[in-house]
Amino acid sequence: MNQPETHHVAPVAATIYRGESVENTHLAHVAVLDADGRLLYSFGDAGRITLARSAAKPAQALAVLETGALERFGFDEADLALMCASHSSEPRHIERTRSMLAKAQASEADLRCGGHPPLSDAVYVDWIRRGFTPGGVCSNCSGKHAGMLAGARSIGAALAGYELPDHPLQVRVKQTVASACDLPDDGVQWAIDGCNLPTPAFPLDRLARLFAKLAAAQDQVEAVQQGATTTVSTRTAALARIYRAMTSYPELVGGEGRFCTLLMQAFGGALVGKVGADGSYAIGVRASQQTARLGAKGALGIAVKIEDGNLAALYAVTAELLALLELGTPEQRAALDGFHAPKRLNTMGVEIGRIGFSVGLTAHS
Amino acid sequence: MNQPETHHVAPVAATIYRGESVENTHLAHVAVLDADGRLLYSFGDAGRITLARSAAKPAQALAVLETGALERFGFDEADLALMCASHSSEPRHIERTRSMLAKAQASEADLRCGGHPPLSDAVYVDWIRRGFTPGGVCSNCSGKHAGMLAGARSIGAALAGYELPDHPLQVRVKQTVASACDLPDDGVQWAIDGCNLPTPAFPLDRLARLFAKLAAAQDQVEAVQQGATTTVSTRTAALARIYRAMTSYPELVGGEGRFCTLLMQAFGGALVGKVGADGSYAIGVRASQQTARLGAKGALGIAVKIEDGNLAALYAVTAELLALLELGTPEQRAALDGFHAPKRLNTMGVEIGRIGFSVGLTAHS
Repeated sequence: MNQPETHHVAPVAATIYRGESVENTHLAHVAVLDADGRLLYSFGDAGRITLARSAAKPAQALAVLETGALERFGFDEADLALMCASHSSEPRHIERTRSMLAKAQASEADLRCGGHPPLSDAVYVDWIRRGFTPGGVCSNCSGKHAGMLAGARSIGAALAGYELPDHPLQVRVKQTVASACDLPDDGVQWAIDGCNLPTPAFPLDRLARLFAKLAAAQDQVEAVQQGATTTVSTRTAALARIYRAMTSYPELVGGEGRFCTLLMQAFGGALVGKVGADGSYAIGVRASQQTARLGAKGALGIAVKIEDGNLAALYAVTAELLALLELGTPEQRAALDGFHAPKRLNTMGVEIGRIGFSVGLTAHS
Repeated sequence: MNQPETHHVAPVAATIYRGESVENTHLAHVAVLDADGRLLYSFGDAGRITLARSAAKPAQALAVLETGALERFGFDEADLALMCASHSSEPRHIERTRSMLAKAQASEADLRCGGHPPLSDAVYVDWIRRGFTPGGVCSNCSGKHAGMLAGARSIGAALAGYELPDHPLQVRVKQTVASACDLPDDGVQWAIDGCNLPTPAFPLDRLARLFAKLAAAQDQVEAVQQGATTTVSTRTAALARIYRAMTSYPELVGGEGRFCTLLMQAFGGALVGKVGADGSYAIGVRASQQTARLGAKGALGIAVKIEDGNLAALYAVTAELLALLELGTPEQRAALDGFHAPKRLNTMGVEIGRIGFSVGLTAHS
C-alpha cells in the first residue's frame, strides 16, 4: 500500500456550504510583499514552490521585450498586453495575434501551441455553431507565442524549436525570469506548460515580488516624468512598459467578463493583476497611502495559490484579500462581487448555499 | 479580518505534478465498512459529514420503490436504474425519462428540475449544433424526478410541490434515507440539490454502509434462490432490486465513457458504484473471498470524499483504492486506467506531468 501522507499542506481559506452543511473546503497560501522583497503578511506557506503558469507571462514578455523585438517588428502597447494575456479567444484576440505574426514575418504554421476549447463559453458556443476548429492562433496563450516568435527572430535564432527548453530564446527567458524574481538561474524549476512553452516554478513570495516590481517600475517612471528623479534603469523602464500595457488594455489580457479584465478596469491603473492556470493569482499595486498603511515601502505585491487549483475559489479568495487589505474603494471592489460571493443558484434558480472565508493575514515585522 | 483557520481537514490523497514540481494536491476522506457497519479501513475522517448528492440516489429511489409506484405505473428494472442515475443526457436517457413520465401520467411541465449543460461533451456539442435548449427531461437527474412524480401519485399526494421538503413524498424520502443509513431522522442534515430536490448530508461511513447493504441485499436474495435461507425482508428485497437494476443497466446510470458505467460493466455485477457531485463516490461489493480477505463479514462498502470536490481527483483516488484493496482482477481494474492515471497531455500532445498517490488505508480491528 501507499505510504499514508499525514502532512497537511495549507490552512483552509474558503469553505463552500450547501444549506448548513460543509460541501467543500479550499486551502490556500498567500504572500504580501513590497517591492524591496519584505514580507508584510502571509497565510499558509508564503514560500510554497508554485507553478505560476500564466501569472509568469509578464516575466516571459520581459525577456522578449529585452531582445528589442517590439521595436524591430513594430509591436505596439496593445500587442505587448496580448503577450501577457490568457485571453478568451475572442475575435479581437485572434485578429491581433494574426497581426502580430504578420509583423514578425511568421505564420500560424510556426506556432507550437495547439488549439483548445476557449476560456469563454460564448466563444465556445459560437465555434461549435460555425463548425470552427481552433488552431494555434486561438490558444489563450497565442499572444505570448507570437511574441516568442518575434523574440527568436530578433536574436537571429531559428523559429523552429522556439518552444524547446534549449532554444536560445528560451535560455534567455529562463535567465530573465530568474533575475526578474531576484533568484539565481538554478532557483527556478522548469516544467512544460499547457501551451507547450517552458513554465517556471518558484516560491510564491517571488511571484508577489515580481508584481510589486512591475508596479514599482511604473512609480519610478512617473517620478522621472514629474522631475522627482532623473533616470531609471533599462530593466525598470521595461517593467513599467509591461505594467502600462496590461493596465491600458485589460480587455486584451483576459476578455469579456473575466476576473483580470474587471479587476484592472475597476482599479483604473492603480494595480495590475494576472491569473495563472491551476489556481495562482498575482497583483502588483502602485504606491499610495493605502500601501503605506499596510507597511509597504512603495509598491505592494500579492500572490495567491489555491492548493487544489480551483479557479472559482482562487477568484473568491483573491477578492476577499483585496477587502481584507482594504485596497481601492468599496465601489472598485464591488466590480468583483460576481466572483467574490456569487449567488449559488441551482438549475431552477433557487439559492442553495454560500461561501465562507477563513483566509486571514499574519502580519510580519 | 477573518479568523485564520488553522485546523487542517484531511490528509493529502493525490498530488498532481507538472515536471518535478507539485502543481496541486487533493485531500480526501475514505471509509471502508462491511454491511454490519464495522469500520475496516479508513483514511482521514471516516465520519466526515458529507453531502452525498447523487451518490444518495439509491436511497431516494428506495423511498419511491416502497410506495409501490413501480408496480402501479409499470416501471421496469431499466426505469429503476435511471432513477438512480446521473446520466449524460444522451438520447436513450431522455427518451426513457419521457416514457417514465408518460407511464406516471405526468409530463415535462410537472418536472421541477431545470435543464443544464450535459455531463457529456459530445451531447453538448450536438445540442449547440442543433440549437437545442434543454428542459427538465434533459437534467442528469431526470430519472430521479420522474420517479418522484410517480411516487407522489402513488401515495395520493399532489404532483405540485413534490420537490419541497415538506411535501408528503419528501417526508417519506427523508425517513427512508435516514433508516437506510441506520440513522435517526434527525441524524441527517438536509440541503437543496443542484436539481432542486432535498439532498442529505451524513457521516461518510454511513454512505459506505448504505452501499454495503445494497450488495449484501443481493447476496441474501441469491441465498434464498439457492435454498440457503428461506426469506428476506421487504426492505432487503427492495435494496436488492436496486442493486440489480444499477448493475444490469450501467449505461443508464452514467453514459458513454463515464466512470460509473465503465466500473460496473468491468465488474459484471460484482459491485455497484455511484458518483455524487462535488467529489463523493460510493461502492458496494458483493461478498467474496476478496471481501473476506479484507475482514468483511459479507459485503463491503467503500465511500470517498474529495475535500475540494474535484471529480478528476475523485475518480483517480477511487480507482487507486480498488487497486490498494486488490478488488477484482487487474484486467477489470484496467477498465478505469483512463481515470486512474490518465496521460497528462498539453495542447500539442506533449506529456507534462503525472499524478502521485499518498492515499492509504489504516486498518481497524
